[in-house]
Amino acid sequence: MGNNIEITPLHVGISVADIEESITWYKEILGFELLSQTYAVPLKCKVAFLRNSSFEIELFQHDETIALPKDRMNPNTDIQTQGTKHICFTNNNVPELVETLKSKGVDVVFGPLNMGTDVVAYIRDNNGTLIEFLQKQ
Amino acid sequence: MGNNIEITPLHVGISVADIEESITWYKEILGFELLSQTYAVPLKCKVAFLRNSSFEIELFQHDETIALPKDRMNPNTDIQTQGTKHICFTNNNVPELVETLKSKGVDVVFGPLNMGTDVVAYIRDNNGTLIEFLQKQ
Repeated sequence: MGNNIEITPLHVGISVADIEESITWYKEILGFELLSQTYAVPLKCKVAFLRNSSFEIELFQHDETIALPKDRMNPNTDIQTQGTKHICFTNNNVPELVETLKSKGVDVVFGPLNMGTDVVAYIRDNNGTLIEFLQKQ
Repeated sequence: MGNNIEITPLHVGISVADIEESITWYKEILGFELLSQTYAVPLKCKVAFLRNSSFEIELFQHDETIALPKDRMNPNTDIQTQGTKHICFTNNNVPELVETLKSKGVDVVFGPLNMGTDVVAYIRDNNGTLIEFLQKQ
């Protein structure tokens, strides 16, 4: 084979405007726990790692942070520009999850939408970054 | 608790200039297998899903694709702008993995770098998108 590369997803990086507000959002809304927090001098960034189960989110707040581009706030416009886009999580009951998130005031972009084989929903985090949820049927 | 949100990472979206070239790259370089490929009319996009173990990559090639912003090609400049950044994978021998990738002509940004508790490396895919590898020690 030669193609048997064993890689496991560990984290996704997300840059934010206010790391304290984002830490609170990922803890209270998506059940992440804060692992560590530091200031990385060479990066001019506050950095925080949060974990839910075995997956982590690495939050960055740059000293001269640049706002989220507007086109990144909608799935259809986001995908036009090349690069890493949304992270997608599975959950075994996306309609119930979306109801829970709505009751917490989360900005739901669309869904839950039954796509035939999948149920899909998109939300925005507190800073406008898209997150997808997908339930395989 | 109320915060026990069970979510598992399923995929990350990556928009690319040429989906065929990127499918080949993710297959040959990172050992992904192609699951499905379609054209999504409402999105004006070619879409492909690839899988390595239980994690997937969703590739998009938009009909009017916009080039990867130059600042997204380096970790330090990428994190200045808010939004979803790199995906990071763990591997139990990052130095060996990087050597294998180098022998396949992969563009290694830096590393493997021993950060004390972690060994870290960044590469670029065939389109310039950053991918991190991290080995916990």
